[in-house]
Amino acid sequence: MEQAELRQLIQEVVKKYLDALYVPVGVSNRHIHVTREDLDILYGKGYELKKMKDLKQPGEFAAEETLEVKTPKGSFKKVRILGPLRKATQVELSLSDGFTLGVAIPIRESGKIENSGSVTLVGPKGEVTLPVGAIAAHRHIHMPPEVAEKYGLKNGDLVDVEKEGSRGLTFKDVLLRVSDKYALEMHLDLDEANAGNIRSGDLLKVIKH
Amino acid sequence: MEQAELRQLIQEVVKKYLDALYVPVGVSNRHIHVTREDLDILYGKGYELKKMKDLKQPGEFAAEETLEVKTPKGSFKKVRILGPLRKATQVELSLSDGFTLGVAIPIRESGKIENSGSVTLVGPKGEVTLPVGAIAAHRHIHMPPEVAEKYGLKNGDLVDVEKEGSRGLTFKDVLLRVSDKYALEMHLDLDEANAGNIRSGDLLKVIKH
Repeated sequence: MEQAELRQLIQEVVKKYLDALYVPVGVSNRHIHVTREDLDILYGKGYELKKMKDLKQPGEFAAEETLEVKTPKGSFKKVRILGPLRKATQVELSLSDGFTLGVAIPIRESGKIENSGSVTLVGPKGEVTLPVGAIAAHRHIHMPPEVAEKYGLKNGDLVDVEKEGSRGLTFKDVLLRVSDKYALEMHLDLDEANAGNIRSGDLLKVIKH
Repeated sequence: MEQAELRQLIQEVVKKYLDALYVPVGVSNRHIHVTREDLDILYGKGYELKKMKDLKQPGEFAAEETLEVKTPKGSFKKVRILGPLRKATQVELSLSDGFTLGVAIPIRESGKIENSGSVTLVGPKGEVTLPVGAIAAHRHIHMPPEVAEKYGLKNGDLVDVEKEGSRGLTFKDVLLRVSDKYALEMHLDLDEANAGNIRSGDLLKVIKH
């Protein structure tokens, strides 16, 4: 191989690595999004959530308030509410949690709760039995438009995401959600994170289809 | 493309699928292997395990007997003992279980327990605090020699294993354990199974490195 040819090959390989898109992971433990109406029942009329800490996605926060999530078969106490309030109450659990509670929970995008799992929420002032609302979150990446554009990606694309090293694995068909309201972050639940020995803040590599 | 050429291409593609190696999955919940000495303390001198059901690996069985696994931070009751007795007591947990118990458990091959997690086992007749012994099992495939030979694989090889469909993923660097004592089976823990929406008996595809 000639020197010029070799130089070009090396440049291509180096460029591939320099150009690679890595996303930081946010691992989600079980949590709850609530409506104004349900919070009125659970914590009292007009109750306002207290911010415990900001989450990475702008405007989102972990609240000081928690609820018990229960079914006839089991319960989790102190499941954190995430703010702000939403238009539908939604409980995000892992499939492991679903087994513990004895409730079948579908893997869904956030907000798509039709025919999802039924659980009861218990707060200090009352309880609400949700006919639907318990889901396992479909793994996804939040991405600002400038990042998507740079890598030739768009909202709704599916990508693979690779974790190297101990318990290395490749998550297939990870949904891309692009919005100027988002910070770059991949959301995994505890099952997914533990399967790959992944912690919040780890950087995983995005592979385009 | 000429007909002969097309025929050959189709044959190659079909052959690839016919030749693919698929392994059935066995999902392991947390469980315990015990020594004669520890069983003497936990269930009484000379106690014999009662077989509840045979496992897929020849000679291995789930016993009727269970133990509590506890630490200062948490506990799991009714964790099943798997027989037969072994030369070292070993507690196989998921990383999620490790968080619940507040104990750091390394990802290890079965039997490699040096510097692994410390937990206390509680039986009806006594309890044993293990200085080491709690691990998360390194994912692996049990394979009889005739299967390994057919696919050009050998004991100690690492392969990738692919799960298609919902929550599809590829497990990288899965350890191959080849022995004429083994039935073909891939072992995953609950974290790994749930991350891929995988159940016992599902068939996953092996990809050689």
